Amino acid sequence: MAGAEEETTLGAADLQALRERLAGLDTAQLVTELERMDATRRAIAFRLLSKREALEVFEDLDPSLQREILDELREEATGDLIADLDPDDRARLFDELPAGLVSRLLSGLDPAERAMTTTLLGYPEGSVGRRMTPEVAALPRDATASDAIARLTAYGEDVETIYSVPVVADGRRVVGVVSLRRLLLSDPDVRVDEVMSDPVMVEATDGQEQAARVVREGGFIAVPVVDHESRLLGVFTVDDAMRVLEAEEDEDVARGGASEPLRRPYLTVSLFGLVRTRVVWLLVLILAATLTVGVQSHFEDELDAVVSLALFIPLLIGTGGNAGAQAATTVVRAMALDDVRPGDLFRVVGREILVGALLGATLAAVGFLPATWVAGADIATVLAATVVAVCALATTVGSSVPLTARKLGIDPAIVSAPFISTFVDTLGLVIYFSVAKAVLGI
Amino acid sequence: MAGAEEETTLGAADLQALRERLAGLDTAQLVTELERMDATRRAIAFRLLSKREALEVFEDLDPSLQREILDELREEATGDLIADLDPDDRARLFDELPAGLVSRLLSGLDPAERAMTTTLLGYPEGSVGRRMTPEVAALPRDATASDAIARLTAYGEDVETIYSVPVVADGRRVVGVVSLRRLLLSDPDVRVDEVMSDPVMVEATDGQEQAARVVREGGFIAVPVVDHESRLLGVFTVDDAMRVLEAEEDEDVARGGASEPLRRPYLTVSLFGLVRTRVVWLLVLILAATLTVGVQSHFEDELDAVVSLALFIPLLIGTGGNAGAQAATTVVRAMALDDVRPGDLFRVVGREILVGALLGATLAAVGFLPATWVAGADIATVLAATVVAVCALATTVGSSVPLTARKLGIDPAIVSAPFISTFVDTLGLVIYFSVAKAVLGI
Repeated sequence: MAGAEEETTLGAADLQALRERLAGLDTAQLVTELERMDATRRAIAFRLLSKREALEVFEDLDPSLQREILDELREEATGDLIADLDPDDRARLFDELPAGLVSRLLSGLDPAERAMTTTLLGYPEGSVGRRMTPEVAALPRDATASDAIARLTAYGEDVETIYSVPVVADGRRVVGVVSLRRLLLSDPDVRVDEVMSDPVMVEATDGQEQAARVVREGGFIAVPVVDHESRLLGVFTVDDAMRVLEAEEDEDVARGGASEPLRRPYLTVSLFGLVRTRVVWLLVLILAATLTVGVQSHFEDELDAVVSLALFIPLLIGTGGNAGAQAATTVVRAMALDDVRPGDLFRVVGREILVGALLGATLAAVGFLPATWVAGADIATVLAATVVAVCALATTVGSSVPLTARKLGIDPAIVSAPFISTFVDTLGLVIYFSVAKAVLGI
Repeated sequence: MAGAEEETTLGAADLQALRERLAGLDTAQLVTELERMDATRRAIAFRLLSKREALEVFEDLDPSLQREILDELREEATGDLIADLDPDDRARLFDELPAGLVSRLLSGLDPAERAMTTTLLGYPEGSVGRRMTPEVAALPRDATASDAIARLTAYGEDVETIYSVPVVADGRRVVGVVSLRRLLLSDPDVRVDEVMSDPVMVEATDGQEQAARVVREGGFIAVPVVDHESRLLGVFTVDDAMRVLEAEEDEDVARGGASEPLRRPYLTVSLFGLVRTRVVWLLVLILAATLTVGVQSHFEDELDAVVSLALFIPLLIGTGGNAGAQAATTVVRAMALDDVRPGDLFRVVGREILVGALLGATLAAVGFLPATWVAGADIATVLAATVVAVCALATTVGSSVPLTARKLGIDPAIVSAPFISTFVDTLGLVIYFSVAKAVLGI
């Protein structure tokens, strides 16, 4: 398949090397390799794949890269690639594409596939409706076990799973869930509704993360997705749940480190792409940090009187920032796991203020003698008192801000570690100079 | 079940309230409620459950809380609770218990369960062998499809899954994997090895996280666990994989925020438990931060000459710390996703140094006029030059340290954001004073 065109962008030796690099890899390995290549090489590599390989690899690629490959292929084989995707994966890719292209691609699908895809695209962004598969098996409640097994077998490969199946009453209302294993183990003549379990379901408008957590906590293979009258719309499977949780983790981790998630493999992001995920955060934080300049100007007389006070500023505010980051990270994580809720604010802050004071006291106890030796007993006393106060303040701010953010409907990860550090820096300076004034009488 | 004993620790009204709080909750909700109570209330709540509920809830509780409940129950019903757990969940709990108690509990099990449990405990900590279930279905390669379905049905509830099943040749060597769906869809007389797929397997000594990622990437329900000669030992299922990934995420998030993971629900951790997860980190970081004091002492003459230099120290080192944290977080995450590997060191650092310079240049461009207005053109020039250098340095350190750590076999999350910030603080000060000396001629 290597035509003249490829050879112009890639030397024959390079092309041969690429071919060898891909030879004998399975689908998962091919996906990994492609996600580590630059765009040109990736497009060429993709064309080197057999048709079957190409379909399988395309299905598993990150949507951002699917998009690029579609751009590169210029219609040639795009129809097949799109038609071969599951409806939920297709909706995920379409989210990435310009509207004009989406409608052209939609018109290339057969009517049934097109209808399913447009239905999914109709649910709000971030909802589980957008990530479910509408190709769902369902059993009538009065079917017998043997009849049910025959029906599931008849679905063949047309539905995403036949292992965990919704049981429906009239109007496709979900009344239970039954596993294929349970059906196989039951008396063939028993009715499905005698062996089904109570259904754990999610509504199509529920958030994806919430639905994914339901799947994880319950250890389910799939959960039915229903409308607000419990009518069956589709199914949300464990593999999609894992993907959603991974993306959520991406976002939380990135924001915890003061940047936006990349949303595509690192090595495929351009330099400006990387800058874009970080620059706004840095600007906001530096703006907030200008407060520290103001505080120090305000205490300039004290600084002039005891210049050695300045020596310990980076150390003190670094420690406050770290203690605040610890508390924020712990609380944000506990909220993500539903171990802590916004209503626990006072309980959590009550604990954290004590934890902060204990941490500060430990640091003060360890550091007092060395500090006395370096800077004298007076400064050491100022430092010890400040570190206790700063740590207690930092853990209080670090724990209360994310909880309050959640209550206000803001993603707590946004206001986590770096934000807290900057905020604590400013307050820490105020405490430091106030303590110094009191102790040193300046 | 509420006896005199409970009423002594909890008033009758409280007991009634507790009873009402638990009424009508399903297993998952009961687990959540118990994980939010204090230890006394939890022990009492647990006794209020019916026997069936108690078994189900116990199974899903965090191992640290399972342990406490065992302590509370004083042998009464512990035998049943332990016997009812799956072997992998039992091994997970036993990891938490003192050796003496483990051997007493083991001796209470029937011989087959005991043998399985001790086998699991024989694998190294952190290995997938410890988290697999040895209760695994397997099919001989020459069975027919209909025979295979009958065999799987005969396993009943004794194995963890019959949906994705290893196919074995002599000596239990795994030669393939077949899904129950495939068997149901095949001609009843076809041989299993004609419809099986190539097996994706993990070795018992492989790391749990690595195995969990194999399950996630492949979208598998389960993967066979084998020894180094591909002989079947057990199966690792998707629900266990999700749990492993959650624990790994816990660890990465905690270390990214300069603390150790809690390893149990937040509200059940004691104050001293919280202090313990953080105090060592704070001590290490404050020790590292003492370098900043040294640097400032070294430049004391320059500070005396131009006191306003001190005003911008918190702002500059805060910005350096943030830029470093961004790079570290991004690279640690990219490694966790296998998008970046230690061998990519130069490629990654080459990108990050440019990203840092671009970020610094943006900040300098935005801040130059305001800084000139506040502190004069000379200081503004120093600040602009410093911020570019500090950002480029921060992203270089932030990206190279985690990659190098991984190469040396250290968890990259350990040396991430807070560590980087502290390190960059020190170097940032050196840069700042050096630039100031050169520009201001002091």
